[in-house]
Amino acid sequence: MATTDNILEAIDADQESALERLFAFLSIPSISAVPAHFPDCERAADWLVGELGGLGFEVAKHPTEGRPMVTGQVKANRRDAPHVLFYGHYDVQPVDPLNLWRSPPFEPKLEAGPHGEQIVARGASDDKGQLMTFLEACRAFEKFGGPPCQISVLFEGEEETGSPSLPAFLAKNAKLLKADIALVCDTGMWGPGTPAITTSLRGLVGEEVILTGANRDLHSGVYGGAAVNPIHVLSTILGALHDSNGAVALPGFYDGVEELPAEIAEQWSTLDFDASAFLGAVGLTTPAGERDRTPLEQLWSRPTCDVNGIVGGYTGEGAKTVLPAKASAKITFRLVGKQNPERVAQAFRSFVTSRLPPDVKAEFISHGGSAAISLPIKNEALRRGRRALEAEWGKPAALVGCGASIPIVGAFKRELQMDSLLVGFALEDDRIHSPNEKYERTSFHKGARSWARILAALAA
Amino acid sequence: MATTDNILEAIDADQESALERLFAFLSIPSISAVPAHFPDCERAADWLVGELGGLGFEVAKHPTEGRPMVTGQVKANRRDAPHVLFYGHYDVQPVDPLNLWRSPPFEPKLEAGPHGEQIVARGASDDKGQLMTFLEACRAFEKFGGPPCQISVLFEGEEETGSPSLPAFLAKNAKLLKADIALVCDTGMWGPGTPAITTSLRGLVGEEVILTGANRDLHSGVYGGAAVNPIHVLSTILGALHDSNGAVALPGFYDGVEELPAEIAEQWSTLDFDASAFLGAVGLTTPAGERDRTPLEQLWSRPTCDVNGIVGGYTGEGAKTVLPAKASAKITFRLVGKQNPERVAQAFRSFVTSRLPPDVKAEFISHGGSAAISLPIKNEALRRGRRALEAEWGKPAALVGCGASIPIVGAFKRELQMDSLLVGFALEDDRIHSPNEKYERTSFHKGARSWARILAALAA
Repeated sequence: MATTDNILEAIDADQESALERLFAFLSIPSISAVPAHFPDCERAADWLVGELGGLGFEVAKHPTEGRPMVTGQVKANRRDAPHVLFYGHYDVQPVDPLNLWRSPPFEPKLEAGPHGEQIVARGASDDKGQLMTFLEACRAFEKFGGPPCQISVLFEGEEETGSPSLPAFLAKNAKLLKADIALVCDTGMWGPGTPAITTSLRGLVGEEVILTGANRDLHSGVYGGAAVNPIHVLSTILGALHDSNGAVALPGFYDGVEELPAEIAEQWSTLDFDASAFLGAVGLTTPAGERDRTPLEQLWSRPTCDVNGIVGGYTGEGAKTVLPAKASAKITFRLVGKQNPERVAQAFRSFVTSRLPPDVKAEFISHGGSAAISLPIKNEALRRGRRALEAEWGKPAALVGCGASIPIVGAFKRELQMDSLLVGFALEDDRIHSPNEKYERTSFHKGARSWARILAALAA
Repeated sequence: MATTDNILEAIDADQESALERLFAFLSIPSISAVPAHFPDCERAADWLVGELGGLGFEVAKHPTEGRPMVTGQVKANRRDAPHVLFYGHYDVQPVDPLNLWRSPPFEPKLEAGPHGEQIVARGASDDKGQLMTFLEACRAFEKFGGPPCQISVLFEGEEETGSPSLPAFLAKNAKLLKADIALVCDTGMWGPGTPAITTSLRGLVGEEVILTGANRDLHSGVYGGAAVNPIHVLSTILGALHDSNGAVALPGFYDGVEELPAEIAEQWSTLDFDASAFLGAVGLTTPAGERDRTPLEQLWSRPTCDVNGIVGGYTGEGAKTVLPAKASAKITFRLVGKQNPERVAQAFRSFVTSRLPPDVKAEFISHGGSAAISLPIKNEALRRGRRALEAEWGKPAALVGCGASIPIVGAFKRELQMDSLLVGFALEDDRIHSPNEKYERTSFHKGARSWARILAALAA
């Protein structure tokens, strides 16, 4: 039977081909938020089906009401091996503003970067590059008689749009997917060269509100002063969402928000988080959230509200003296602790409707919701995973929180009563969701090696 | 010498050809706010040059830093006739949202409407249809030896973008343009069948503000809670522009705003303005401006502030968890009395900059400004014009205010020390600046007849 060293050598020897495979995957513009790209999402799913088939997986593509799910199963190289479920997503964020990209977002290329060579493309880091680290580990094991764990994989195509089809799919396919532990690769390193395991994730509620006043756009000279302006109403409401201390002003919003446990606070205090550097990298100087919280709390353990987009009236070049009929905004809330997504959405809707003046109507669109999640810090898989990462990177893996949402982790817990080990190799400066997204070539290479070590450790 | 009846008969006999000419003019998409349509603005100017040439005018097209000016002069049929300057504009508003038009905006057509046949196209009412009423009157006079007044015309192509080139052009061409009185056709009737002369106009200040936070769009999970969100800042500022009583909250904004003179208040009280019908026609029920003012005051004699457009972050379909780097809004202020446009613009900029939190920068773009204007209610030209309108329409012309801006009127007063007689045949429901803009065929026909009578009356 092959040693872990054999596996790692196989990964090292295959780097050029691995990069070609990743580039092929990155070339598919699988933007799940944009209907014109739905066929590309299908292509990305089909591409994964082909890859998995070549790695000895039994594969299936499952249609949903949205984008398809891809699942695969491969047996371990011995009996009584643990069973892991690896999760990733093949969909990516929209690319606008396109003019800020240095090269076309779906023509991946290697560039020199501050930490070494980097792979630049939409989805390079979130999540195609991360996903492929695991498949490259599987490929190495496949050359030596199969992996040490029984492996199932689940790849979805709706992660960037709130995973609407996931809960029902998990419930229906619980038997196919249930494993001893889930491995989820949608997270990051603590910094270049320092691996991390993420033990808490914020939840998410997405809401869109559309306010309508008059039954058509009006001339602001002819009607201005007497006709209600939906942009004014929307601005006033959005302006009231935060109080003067930076806290979210929805009644009941902080129900279920808990103070940070001492054990976690202690671990975070060892992290030497440099808020100035974190904000400075994006041109900012001053933490803008709740005044009485540390920046790490603001980012990881406190709930937030952000307007992600707003539009109304004339937004083209020059001026137009219009008094618009409509104004709309997309808003997300990040949740922590035991905050209830449905109650937060309801509180937002009540907040808006209770502030509407005569003649203004509100329509709401839900963009999904998921509760926050915390992983048990003394879990055995976590202990073994941490040791494997230390062996690969030469330093202990940090245990960190994450401000972003990975709905799948909550769904695994809720639907399959399964914990998740969150390991990923993204860096803070990967520009995920932004122009010129990148993934370190080191992350891609050592990520695959890390998974090989983790699988071996889990089976030991 | 021809009688006024001869002229009116000539106008009546020429209606079909007149409509063809108007349709040709309306087919030119001369949108002055959109650079892609600058060549169409040139075409519209050239078209007018051709028309005026055919009517015996000495014509010139004058380049400016923006769209060209067209001027023309024709002698009166007798000596010592009064000299009038007729003003109109050949540019039109943008057409978005295009999907709300029942037919393409630059393919004019006749439709049955509630008041009779109507001409549907962008610019039908504002201002190409109105402008052509005057040229059709000139055409009738031209068949009988020329007009009874010495006529100059000035047609500009920047009215919808704040007329940036006008003041300098007027100053430079004062000798060419100065007349005894200006005739300005950019206003409306009091109602179907009831002519009006507009004796007060609100001024206008256009400002655009662009707020920038981080140096790129951020992931709202990774940065939310610590990074400043320019949409929040913009919303809070825009929400503070009005107080709870509906008044504009800029310090010093009401400097120069006067109470309505008793004489005007008396005339307005006879107008039987139906605020419910006015607002009801656009789906509204409740005057939304200053609480302690009548609707006519809100519309004609009180200053306002309206956000005409707002945009920031992700505004496409679906959701995107972005924390945007930028947010911007276009704002117009309507001015009355002696409010100073420069001071209002400066008060707005100070209002914004004084409310910026750390890390948010504001950039401002001016979209022009003009003071409000009131016309002397006992002017001799006004008296004669009113009599001529009564002869054509069979009822007295109402003396009204107008909430919209006609910068040219202020410029004529300021640069040429010339009063303006504001007569037009638009109706309140013409949907100017909105989809499916229309002009009544009756307005087009009787408008031309009205100008023939007014020119005769001014020369009598």
